[in-house]
Amino acid sequence: MDPLFDAAEYARRLTLVRARMAAHGIDVLVEADPANMNYLTGYDGWSFYTPQVVLLPMEGEPVWVGRGLDRGGAVLTCHMAPENLVPYPDHLVQHPTLHPMQFAAEEMARRGWAKARVGIADDCFTFTPRARDTLEASLPEARVVVADLLVNWVRLVKSDAEIAVMRKAARTVERMMEAYYRHMRPGARQCDVASEIIKVQVAGTEAGGGDYTTPIFMPVGRQTSASHLTWTDQIIPAGQTSYLECAGVHRRYHCPLARTIHLGTPTQKLLDMNKAVLESMDAALAQVKPGNTCEQVEDAFRTTMARHGLKKESRIGYPIGIGYPPTWGERTASLRQGDKTVLEPNMCFHMILGMWQGDWGFETSESFRVTEAGHECFASVPRELKVVN
Amino acid sequence: MDPLFDAAEYARRLTLVRARMAAHGIDVLVEADPANMNYLTGYDGWSFYTPQVVLLPMEGEPVWVGRGLDRGGAVLTCHMAPENLVPYPDHLVQHPTLHPMQFAAEEMARRGWAKARVGIADDCFTFTPRARDTLEASLPEARVVVADLLVNWVRLVKSDAEIAVMRKAARTVERMMEAYYRHMRPGARQCDVASEIIKVQVAGTEAGGGDYTTPIFMPVGRQTSASHLTWTDQIIPAGQTSYLECAGVHRRYHCPLARTIHLGTPTQKLLDMNKAVLESMDAALAQVKPGNTCEQVEDAFRTTMARHGLKKESRIGYPIGIGYPPTWGERTASLRQGDKTVLEPNMCFHMILGMWQGDWGFETSESFRVTEAGHECFASVPRELKVVN
Repeated sequence: MDPLFDAAEYARRLTLVRARMAAHGIDVLVEADPANMNYLTGYDGWSFYTPQVVLLPMEGEPVWVGRGLDRGGAVLTCHMAPENLVPYPDHLVQHPTLHPMQFAAEEMARRGWAKARVGIADDCFTFTPRARDTLEASLPEARVVVADLLVNWVRLVKSDAEIAVMRKAARTVERMMEAYYRHMRPGARQCDVASEIIKVQVAGTEAGGGDYTTPIFMPVGRQTSASHLTWTDQIIPAGQTSYLECAGVHRRYHCPLARTIHLGTPTQKLLDMNKAVLESMDAALAQVKPGNTCEQVEDAFRTTMARHGLKKESRIGYPIGIGYPPTWGERTASLRQGDKTVLEPNMCFHMILGMWQGDWGFETSESFRVTEAGHECFASVPRELKVVN
Repeated sequence: MDPLFDAAEYARRLTLVRARMAAHGIDVLVEADPANMNYLTGYDGWSFYTPQVVLLPMEGEPVWVGRGLDRGGAVLTCHMAPENLVPYPDHLVQHPTLHPMQFAAEEMARRGWAKARVGIADDCFTFTPRARDTLEASLPEARVVVADLLVNWVRLVKSDAEIAVMRKAARTVERMMEAYYRHMRPGARQCDVASEIIKVQVAGTEAGGGDYTTPIFMPVGRQTSASHLTWTDQIIPAGQTSYLECAGVHRRYHCPLARTIHLGTPTQKLLDMNKAVLESMDAALAQVKPGNTCEQVEDAFRTTMARHGLKKESRIGYPIGIGYPPTWGERTASLRQGDKTVLEPNMCFHMILGMWQGDWGFETSESFRVTEAGHECFASVPRELKVVN
């Protein structure tokens, strides 16, 4: 399997990450987030349900430490020296008293890092309390430095090569939305409509194949009052609203998108919501440019919504790029009050405007990058409520 | 959305879990595993990328604590009293200094549990070191008891109602394998074949709609030397081996299955492997009956493989039932040496025989339940290597 990027791209990333490591006083980073592991090494496998890490020293190649049966996948995706792909024995997996992080610590000691300043994250899905406790107990002379999201913050600004991959993902999500508009009809089962959309998600386009990700959210009727519901096998009645929130993906890079459809004649309140949200999105996107902050973007949205007598309680966006379930978000900046992250060219966000209203709802969104002068939306799909009669 | 089970099923579960809580000296369990949350309350949403927990006291209804925008999903799936669905404000999400577990601790104190013996898991994907530290710091008078996998061990033995749901998932995985055999052809892109299989996975059958899960593993050629690779957009050449490891799912209940296909004339070593693995699987399944242990099952496999001069380094199976990505396994017992878990009727396992051989591989598997007298495979698909010429 060919590497997604050339060696210069990976070298650039290591340089940026090491600058942050130096600033935090870290000699060796222990990285367990699968998106960060991919970012640093190219490693790509659905193996993050068992402990695995990339060890990044200040010099030389990173070191992958994972389950023995996943080393074959590392060989095929990492393009690293064999001695830096280190397998642990299978009996450590889900063992009541032994843990793979003891093995990782022993590997670190073997490489002379027993007394190093070791950087870890403390709020990462794939690095549990037991993993941290085991690592610390097995490296008694090391100094552990908590530096959550260190690599994630580097990921925030994309290279042009990454942007090109995200554009391929955008072509897929455009076709997913076409499939939604074509198949979402009264009388169909929700699961059958979802299956047509996900078929497109996996196949991708001629420009690039699709990939897995977080499942699509495709509530119907009262379910639209909630976020994060997927689909059921219920029959879709006439006269209902539905929304689709989904992502096109190419080789782990995401382009999310959400749109709302109504099967029948929409109520006035739904039309009013559509109008208010689109106008507020325009106002927010107009604030996207280098030098402005995340909270300025959100403020434009909130102010415009308030003129329509509406308010959204939750943040309106987050950065996107490489993602592994359970999230396609990067977990760093948020488009919300108080977030003073300054926008730079090639930062990429999903602005997601979900309005959940007790027993109904509406969503629309755009994935965009910050350009030198403003923003560029990745996908091209009309934003307004789709009405099917 | 209708609850999947009647109230008696949920009451049964709480009784069993509380018996284990009593044995561990736990007054209130803090449960963050989405599969366990579903098991205890029915809660089902793709919301586990932000902190959320079910609090289970020794008496009364469980309490769901989650992000405000997910409360709508809890209303639709939990069927619990409104006062027991407790939302936290959105600014706590991915905040640099605040954490939702402080909110959860305050809710616990409000309910009189500030000095309780509080049970937590320390090796669960969705309960990070920061979550544990915040909870403990926010409940200074509580006594924290680590009881990893407490609910998971209860889940190990299914009710007949759960078995009925898993049978629906089995019908889906049978059709997924049909789609694999039909579409896996030289000249197709891997992603296009995968899209046909996943379409079936999501649609399900007339018996029950499909659901999301861990992506399918569908390596081709040299990729079969690795576990946990999904698919690429490469063109499938003639003369290659491929395997499919996947699961049918109905309402979060899983039936996994793996099979191998060869496009052309198989090598003798592949045919020999097929013969050895099928014979060894028969020997292992013959040991599945109440009273035998997990290691006895694995021993029969290992002994038979050894007669063919073959050895598998990794465990050969794990329990299945409710699953959320990143794993459909229950993380308790393993079919491997040293595991003395005694089999009981309605324990359900995926026996997965992956043989990764450096530059080629072979997989077959069965999902089965332990019966009063032996075992019953959920799916009905011939086990042997599928040859397509």
